[in-house]
Amino acid sequence: MNRFKTMDSDAFRQHGYALIDWLADYYQRVESLPVLAQTEPGAIRAQLPPQPPLQGEAFEQIMADVERIILPGITHWQSPNFFAFFPANSSPPAVLGELLSAGLGVQGMLWATSPACTELETQVLDWVVELMGLPQRFRSDSDGGGVLQDSASSAVLCALLAARERATAGVMNRQGGRHGLIAYASDQAHSSIEKAVGIAGIGRDNVRLIASDTQQAMNPEALAQQIQADRAAGLQPFWVNATLGTTSSLAFDPLPAIARICQEHQLWLHVDAAMAGSAAVCPEFRHWQQGLEQADSYCFNPHKWLLTNFDCSCFYVADRQALINALSILPDYLRNRATESGEVIDYRDWQIPLGRRFRALKLWFVIRHYGISGLQQHIRRHVELAHQLARWIEADPDFELAAPVPLNLVCFRHRRGDVFNHTLLERVNASGALYLTHTRLNERYTLRLCIGQPHTTICHVEAAWHTLQATAEQLNDDR
Amino acid sequence: MNRFKTMDSDAFRQHGYALIDWLADYYQRVESLPVLAQTEPGAIRAQLPPQPPLQGEAFEQIMADVERIILPGITHWQSPNFFAFFPANSSPPAVLGELLSAGLGVQGMLWATSPACTELETQVLDWVVELMGLPQRFRSDSDGGGVLQDSASSAVLCALLAARERATAGVMNRQGGRHGLIAYASDQAHSSIEKAVGIAGIGRDNVRLIASDTQQAMNPEALAQQIQADRAAGLQPFWVNATLGTTSSLAFDPLPAIARICQEHQLWLHVDAAMAGSAAVCPEFRHWQQGLEQADSYCFNPHKWLLTNFDCSCFYVADRQALINALSILPDYLRNRATESGEVIDYRDWQIPLGRRFRALKLWFVIRHYGISGLQQHIRRHVELAHQLARWIEADPDFELAAPVPLNLVCFRHRRGDVFNHTLLERVNASGALYLTHTRLNERYTLRLCIGQPHTTICHVEAAWHTLQATAEQLNDDR
Repeated sequence: MNRFKTMDSDAFRQHGYALIDWLADYYQRVESLPVLAQTEPGAIRAQLPPQPPLQGEAFEQIMADVERIILPGITHWQSPNFFAFFPANSSPPAVLGELLSAGLGVQGMLWATSPACTELETQVLDWVVELMGLPQRFRSDSDGGGVLQDSASSAVLCALLAARERATAGVMNRQGGRHGLIAYASDQAHSSIEKAVGIAGIGRDNVRLIASDTQQAMNPEALAQQIQADRAAGLQPFWVNATLGTTSSLAFDPLPAIARICQEHQLWLHVDAAMAGSAAVCPEFRHWQQGLEQADSYCFNPHKWLLTNFDCSCFYVADRQALINALSILPDYLRNRATESGEVIDYRDWQIPLGRRFRALKLWFVIRHYGISGLQQHIRRHVELAHQLARWIEADPDFELAAPVPLNLVCFRHRRGDVFNHTLLERVNASGALYLTHTRLNERYTLRLCIGQPHTTICHVEAAWHTLQATAEQLNDDR
Repeated sequence: MNRFKTMDSDAFRQHGYALIDWLADYYQRVESLPVLAQTEPGAIRAQLPPQPPLQGEAFEQIMADVERIILPGITHWQSPNFFAFFPANSSPPAVLGELLSAGLGVQGMLWATSPACTELETQVLDWVVELMGLPQRFRSDSDGGGVLQDSASSAVLCALLAARERATAGVMNRQGGRHGLIAYASDQAHSSIEKAVGIAGIGRDNVRLIASDTQQAMNPEALAQQIQADRAAGLQPFWVNATLGTTSSLAFDPLPAIARICQEHQLWLHVDAAMAGSAAVCPEFRHWQQGLEQADSYCFNPHKWLLTNFDCSCFYVADRQALINALSILPDYLRNRATESGEVIDYRDWQIPLGRRFRALKLWFVIRHYGISGLQQHIRRHVELAHQLARWIEADPDFELAAPVPLNLVCFRHRRGDVFNHTLLERVNASGALYLTHTRLNERYTLRLCIGQPHTTICHVEAAWHTLQATAEQLNDDR
C-alpha cells in the first residue's frame, strides 16, 4: 500500500483556527477595502501558475496567496458599503452552519441517506411558515411543503415544470413537444422566468410580459385581457408569476387581483418574493402577502436579506404531489425501504439535481441564534436606513426619487439625465468607497441603492450619500 | 435606530474554534458511530420544537442540539466504513475552502461581481484539463471551457440544452414545442439523463435506452441501428450520452466507437464520468478517455472521489458559444462594462441558476494541498483496496463477483440468490458496522461495495468483508 496521507486532525485544528481568525479579521477590515474590485480582466489569472503543482504545498502558502492574489480580485459583498444589486448577506452563525454542513459531508438526496438532513429541513421550513406568516397550505402537514433550493431561478423552474405537467396531465414530461402553453409575468419580473421557460421547452416567446403601471406593478386588467386573447387564439394559458418586490425597483404586483384571475382560469400561480419575502418576519410588512393563500408556489431567499449565506432559497408548494410528479425518477440503485414505505420525504424529487447538501443547518443556526425578535430588528433597521436616505434625496433639489421606497431599496436619479447618472455611477463605483448598480425605470436610467448588510449603519449610508452628492458636484464642475 | 446586533468578531472566533474542534473530534470518532443512521421516520423531527424561538439562543445550546438531536440522524458519509452508492468524499482542505467561500460570501454570477471568483474558476478548470489529461479543446484558451456545476445532473441538463439549441438552430429555446428530437444513452446510464430530457421538454419517451452487453457497456452497433431507424422514421437524433463508469457497476461505454457514430450523424456527444473521471489523475487510468477528443461535453465530480466536498462538478464544453446561446439572458440590471467588452466570462450563462458561490476555492485548496502526486496516491490506494477485496470474494466459494473491478467498485453476490442477498444487505446495514447498497445486474440482485473514503484502510475493508461473511453464515444457520 502506498502512503497517501490526508490532513490530520491536529493540522485541521491549526489551519481551521487560522482561517477562522483570518475571517474574523476580514470582517473587521472589509470596510476599508475598495468595495468593487479594482482589477482588469485577466489580472488575477496572470498571477496564478499555469500548471497544478506536482507536490503538495503548505496550507500557509495557500492562505498567503488568498491574501495576495485572491483578495484584490474580490468585490466585497459583505462590506457595509455594498449597496449593489440585491444583497447576498450573511452572518457568523450562517457561516458556521455552512462549515458544519461541509464538515459532516452528508448527501441528503434521500431520507435514508441522512434522515436528519431531510427532517431538519422539513421542520425549519415549517418554522419559516410561522416566522413569515405564510399560508398553512405550505406546511408539510398539509398537502404541500417546503424545500431549500440553491436559488429563486431553480425554484421558478421547478414551479414551472410542476405546472407544465399538471396542465398537460404528464404528457409533456413523457412525450415533449407540446405547442401552445403560455406563461405570464409582468415586464418587471425577473429574467430567470424567461430563462426557465426556455429551459422547459415551452419557448421564451411564449412568456407574455404583461405591462406594468407607472409604479412598476403588474396591471391585472392587462393580464386578464391577454389570457382571454390567448384562449381565443386556441392557446393554453397555464402559469402566472407574480412578483412581490421586483428586482428593478421593489415593486409589488397586486396579488389578490392576480390570484382571482388565476383561480378563474385555473392557472398555476407562482409568487416570487426573492428579496422582499424576508421582510415578512415583521408583521407590519405582511400586507403584500394577501392573496398568497391562493398561490400554488412561493419562493423567497434567506440568502438575500435574512443573514444566511448563499445558497439558501425557500421554495413552497401547495400540492407537493404535482412537484414530485414532474421531477421524480427511481432507478434501482436508489430504491430503499424508507422510500417504499411512503412515510418519508425524498427531497431529490423536489429539485433539479439529485445530490443535495445539508443546507438546513445554516438556516436553523440563523433562526435560533437571532430568534424572531433579532430577525425583526435586523429588517426594521434596514428599512429605517432606506427611509432616511430617501428623505435626504427628497431634500436635495439636484436629485429625485424614481420609485416609492417600501423597504430597503432606494431608486433615484440626478436631475441631469441618463448620461450624467451613468457617469456618476461609474465614477462612484471606481472610487471604491461604495458600490451601487442601476436599472431603467419608465425609460430612464436610474440608480439603485439597496441596504442589506448587517454591518451597515447610518454612518455608512450617510457617507454613501455624501460621496454621491460630492461626485455629482465635481461632475458639474468638470463640464 | 433599534439595537440589532450580529455575532461580533470575538464571538465568531470563539464559536468558530469550538466548531473546528467539534469537527476534528468528529473525524476521530466517526469510525465508531453506526454508519447508517439507526432512526425511524419522524424521530428527529419529534425532538425539535414546533415553533422558532422568539429570542436568540446561545450558540453552545445550538451545538448541544447538534450533538444530541442531529448526530444520531446522520448517515456518516465520511466514515471509513461507508461503502454505499458512490462516495461523496471530502478532506480538510476542501472543508476549509468551503468555509472561506461562505465567509467571503461573494456572488460570482458575473465577472464584475467578483473577478477573482470567475478567474480562479477558469484557471483551476484549465489546471484540471492538464491534471486529468483531458482534450485541449476543453481549455478556456480554445473555443471551449470548463465551469463548476453543483452536480452531474445539472451538467447533463446544460449539455442537453446546448445540444437542443444547436440542433434546432435556437428555435426550441424561443418557440418551444418541437417534436421528434431523440436522445440516446445506454440502459445503464444515470437516471439524471431521463430526468433532464423530461425537464427540457423533449419527453422522457424520447430517450432511447440502448441495450448494453453482458459487461454493462453500451453496444455501439445497437446505437447505430437505432439512430438509422429513428432517422428513417423521420425523427431527429441529436444527442448521445456515453458513460465512463456507470452507477450500477462502473462499466465503461466504448467511447471511440460511439464518437465515430456521433461524428457520422453530427450528434452532440456528452460524456458522463461522474465517479470514474477522478481516476484519470493517474495516467494508467486514462485509456478509457480515448475518444474524448471528439466529445462536445464532459463531466466528472471531484465531490465524488477527489477529496472535495459536495458540491463540485467539473463540466466542460468544446464550443462554449453553444452553451451560452442556450442559457444566456441579459436584463438591464445586469449590464456592465466588463460584460459588454467581451473580454470576460460571465458564468451565469453557463448554468441553470443565476447566482453562484465561490466553489473554485475548495478545488484549488485540494489540488494545491495534495499536489498531483498526492491525488494519484489517493486514487491508487483505493483501487488497490478494491482489488484486494475482489480477490477475497473470488476465493470464497459462497460468493461471486458480478462484474469486473476496473477501479474502486466491487459488485458481488452470495450464491444463494436474490432474496438471500437482499436480506444480507439489510442485516449488514442494520448492524451499523458498515453501509453498502445494491443494484440489479443481468436481472440479478447485486451488492455494491465502493471504496472512496480517505480514511478507509485495508483494516476497514477486511472488517467489512468479515462482517459480510459472518452475517451470511448466520443467515444460513437461521434457515
